[in-house]
Amino acid sequence: MSSPLPTPRSKRQFSTDRLRRHVPILDWSRRYDRTTLTSDLVAAVIVTIMLIPQSLAYALLAGLPPEMGIYASILPLLAYAVFGTSRALAVGPVAVVSLMTAAAAGKIAAQGTPEYIAAAITLAFLSGVMLLAMGLFRLGFLANFLSHPVIAGFITASGILIATSQVKHILGIQAGGSNLIGMIGGIVAHLGDTQLTTLAIGAASLAFLFWVRRGLKPLLRSAGLPPRLADLLAKAGPVMAVALSILAVRAFGLADRGVAVVGDVPTGLPPLTLPSFAPSLWSDLFVSALLISVIGFVESVSVAQTLAAKRRQRIVPDQELVGLGASNIAAAFSGGYPVTGGFARSVVNFDAGAETPAAGAFTAVGLSLAALLLTPLLFFLPKAVLAATIIVAVLSLVDLSILRRTWTYNRVDFAAVAATILLTLLAGVEIGVSAGVALSILMFLYKTSRPHVAEVGLVPGTQHFRNIRRHRVETDPAVVTMRIDESLYFANAAFLQDLIYDRIVCDQPIRHVVLMCSAVNEIDMSALESLEAINTRLSELDIKLHLSEVKGPVMDRLKRSHFLVELSGEVFLSQYDAHTALTAQAQAAE
Amino acid sequence: MSSPLPTPRSKRQFSTDRLRRHVPILDWSRRYDRTTLTSDLVAAVIVTIMLIPQSLAYALLAGLPPEMGIYASILPLLAYAVFGTSRALAVGPVAVVSLMTAAAAGKIAAQGTPEYIAAAITLAFLSGVMLLAMGLFRLGFLANFLSHPVIAGFITASGILIATSQVKHILGIQAGGSNLIGMIGGIVAHLGDTQLTTLAIGAASLAFLFWVRRGLKPLLRSAGLPPRLADLLAKAGPVMAVALSILAVRAFGLADRGVAVVGDVPTGLPPLTLPSFAPSLWSDLFVSALLISVIGFVESVSVAQTLAAKRRQRIVPDQELVGLGASNIAAAFSGGYPVTGGFARSVVNFDAGAETPAAGAFTAVGLSLAALLLTPLLFFLPKAVLAATIIVAVLSLVDLSILRRTWTYNRVDFAAVAATILLTLLAGVEIGVSAGVALSILMFLYKTSRPHVAEVGLVPGTQHFRNIRRHRVETDPAVVTMRIDESLYFANAAFLQDLIYDRIVCDQPIRHVVLMCSAVNEIDMSALESLEAINTRLSELDIKLHLSEVKGPVMDRLKRSHFLVELSGEVFLSQYDAHTALTAQAQAAE
Repeated sequence: MSSPLPTPRSKRQFSTDRLRRHVPILDWSRRYDRTTLTSDLVAAVIVTIMLIPQSLAYALLAGLPPEMGIYASILPLLAYAVFGTSRALAVGPVAVVSLMTAAAAGKIAAQGTPEYIAAAITLAFLSGVMLLAMGLFRLGFLANFLSHPVIAGFITASGILIATSQVKHILGIQAGGSNLIGMIGGIVAHLGDTQLTTLAIGAASLAFLFWVRRGLKPLLRSAGLPPRLADLLAKAGPVMAVALSILAVRAFGLADRGVAVVGDVPTGLPPLTLPSFAPSLWSDLFVSALLISVIGFVESVSVAQTLAAKRRQRIVPDQELVGLGASNIAAAFSGGYPVTGGFARSVVNFDAGAETPAAGAFTAVGLSLAALLLTPLLFFLPKAVLAATIIVAVLSLVDLSILRRTWTYNRVDFAAVAATILLTLLAGVEIGVSAGVALSILMFLYKTSRPHVAEVGLVPGTQHFRNIRRHRVETDPAVVTMRIDESLYFANAAFLQDLIYDRIVCDQPIRHVVLMCSAVNEIDMSALESLEAINTRLSELDIKLHLSEVKGPVMDRLKRSHFLVELSGEVFLSQYDAHTALTAQAQAAE
Repeated sequence: MSSPLPTPRSKRQFSTDRLRRHVPILDWSRRYDRTTLTSDLVAAVIVTIMLIPQSLAYALLAGLPPEMGIYASILPLLAYAVFGTSRALAVGPVAVVSLMTAAAAGKIAAQGTPEYIAAAITLAFLSGVMLLAMGLFRLGFLANFLSHPVIAGFITASGILIATSQVKHILGIQAGGSNLIGMIGGIVAHLGDTQLTTLAIGAASLAFLFWVRRGLKPLLRSAGLPPRLADLLAKAGPVMAVALSILAVRAFGLADRGVAVVGDVPTGLPPLTLPSFAPSLWSDLFVSALLISVIGFVESVSVAQTLAAKRRQRIVPDQELVGLGASNIAAAFSGGYPVTGGFARSVVNFDAGAETPAAGAFTAVGLSLAALLLTPLLFFLPKAVLAATIIVAVLSLVDLSILRRTWTYNRVDFAAVAATILLTLLAGVEIGVSAGVALSILMFLYKTSRPHVAEVGLVPGTQHFRNIRRHRVETDPAVVTMRIDESLYFANAAFLQDLIYDRIVCDQPIRHVVLMCSAVNEIDMSALESLEAINTRLSELDIKLHLSEVKGPVMDRLKRSHFLVELSGEVFLSQYDAHTALTAQAQAAE
């Protein structure tokens, strides 16, 4: 491709393009019109209704005061609207990240202390800086090392953990426990303390929310409502539960009868807060912040990609990192805690017609109004109702079918999923997801360290070569051809040597060994040295080593080494050439 | 293969075979005769002469009393003779492992304290248990993750570190420092304290040893000695230096003039010692012991393999782990410290004609005699002479050409070597080698996460398909064929999706996408889900997805999923079939 020489004008053009790439709002805002505004406003109203109870509930899950959930749903959304690329992603507090925040901050201080809150704010800051750095250094690919089954297993196990952690609020008891067994033990030990009024409210909310999810939508549709409206009304279930329960608690004075309520929620816009800059806290939170960043990014980018694909749009993963990074930094400076793009909320935003990130900004305005006007009403909101909304939301994340699917398809993936689920449940979210990632990588390395190698022969009447164990093929006793089904690199260099030496020991008349390299995408320095050793060893035994079907980039690199000079045999373009030449040579020698 | 039904006799036979595999001495001792005995005895005498100064010197390097070097050269050799498979490997203290021992024990206590000695003994025990466990669980493949360049870089950097650490003994000064800069700083700071008599002895020894290595052999050969004898006499250089220096120190009373000498070395056979079983010490030494085990195993197995190959013998890596494990456990119970197979010593053993591991047992007898008879003579041995033998030995390990070779061949390998060398020199052996391994693995994963993908077309007049960017090929605007040069797995699943979506966006008339899978050796669950997503997305755009040249094992697995049912297109056996069918279809549609 040729491009004109840069003139002052095209340079300016270039830097404007670049600015637009890093600040996407400059791009989409130029085409913003009244139609788009209407779509975005409608979506924002619906998401706001959904987000108010969620933000309170997830703050409860994170062990933080309810207003921090609201604060985390204001400035972070504005920041994402400026820097994010997804048209439909709804950023804010989400269940899994809230659980991870609780786990990380819980290692620093006890829930309810100022140190705990400071840890959560600092976590948002660190996570924001990491996301931003990953975006600027284009490290988004790191998220690829979380395999789909590991993510699925982690989300499922987190869902189970989160649901279990909320049972105490439904029962109105005090119970601790940081893993599944501890939580269940705590619940069983305090079962006698169950607060019956709280249980009644909690159970009723659960039943109501499940019914809204399963039963309301069909009912509304059979009542003649259009499907989208029915769907959206069903999403308002949690807000209805919140409103009804507040009314009930006020009317019957249930707060005086022992029902735990949210209590005083400060009225007003988010305060300016500062993360801690204590190096010891940073080092204590480093790994947790990294895990929160990566998990948050993966969750967010997968929903953003799915939604973008439906409208044939694209998102830019590295710019998404910048967007989420900016959101988390905004959360840290405005009394919030780690946020990311939520799955359910984004789908609602998309279905409601959000066309640009401005929908998120309007949602932030909605939440600001809630912070200014609605907080006094929240005093009597029972914690049991928030717990019920969490349980109903996260149970939809639980999908154990991944175990069956991986078991059928690939035992290696199954092992990774099973380990992730078990360790997340029993040892906590951080150990669970780290072990899943480590196990996936180790098993991939193990697999590539013992590659599939087939001894091949010519399929009669063709120029094709196939595995001698699977097909009826022609071979020459003096020529052994091995097709190596893997790149050659340090982890399998020794394996290759062993394999060839073993093959040579057992058969005596061999004069030629051909390595068919059609699936060898790389030969690194270790493998090169192994090939050199094989070549020397075979020469001593008066056996020639040949290569065939070496790929262009691999050949380019081999030419830079001495290997081709020292090679006792030849490099054949095709395996058929090798076969023809060597068979003739072997027969002439007889 | 069919095998007869097991009878009581063949069962017994089987268990005897199995016992012989795990205790190789039962195998080779049956064929032991007088000729073999003579060869082994000659080799043992020569290795003993070489090992006496080495065992003292390496104990000095490890910061341990000299007798521990001798003890580490007795029982461990007997243990290896029973359990090892290499005919020529000479086990005992070696330079790199001694340095690693000093680094690990130095983290626990100061040199010269009983705690330091206990840490070294415990390190031998832990390392022995780990090696044994790796052998029994067949985890020898783990050593493959140390790439050749990383090992080469690590050995080179260790050689530089070791040589530098000995300079203080040559100068007769006290100087500390745990990394290269610290050591050089320490030497420069104390240069004024240089003990001139010590320096004279040290410099003379260095000059003598270098001359023996470079000049003596040619001299002896020109004097008419046969090459092997000349070579072996040259190997006795360190023993001559030791003997001469002891005589000089005694004759001129140099010990009273400030020359540091070895001093009292207890006379007698190795004492029974016990490793510590304190859990805190175990956890402190765990990582160090693991690194010592792996590095020791890699060093040992590579020399054993090289030597075995010269006589067309084989060693069994997993059994070698058992042999080295037994040696290290023996070291822990007999006052020794971590041992492994040494490179230089094993080559001497091999050249001297060692035919079975019995040569090692005879060497142990030689060292026992030294422990009983020679220790009083060692009182006046100057430490500077031991330091000189170490420096001369390790400088032969230093080979910076690996930097140039990797730079030419493969920048990824170069980065791993450079990082290993720099970090070993500046941050220590443990961080250096760990970083090298981690970097190699990460870069391999990164590379496979962005595989080479070529869009291919038909080479006219053939059935071959080549990269459209490198060759003049035939293509159909309605058919896009992508050849993927890598297994598809979690780390590149997202990459594949992005790649195909990008390709689809820019060209409109596409009706068929073919993925040519000739180099795809594996499709894991994550990649399967990506393929399903691609299939769905393309279907929405009315584009069919096809596969071609799918390998047998990959196809077997795909058949266990729903993917083939949902696939919008077909699976073609060869790319040519795909081309013929789809081109015809596309033309018919026009």
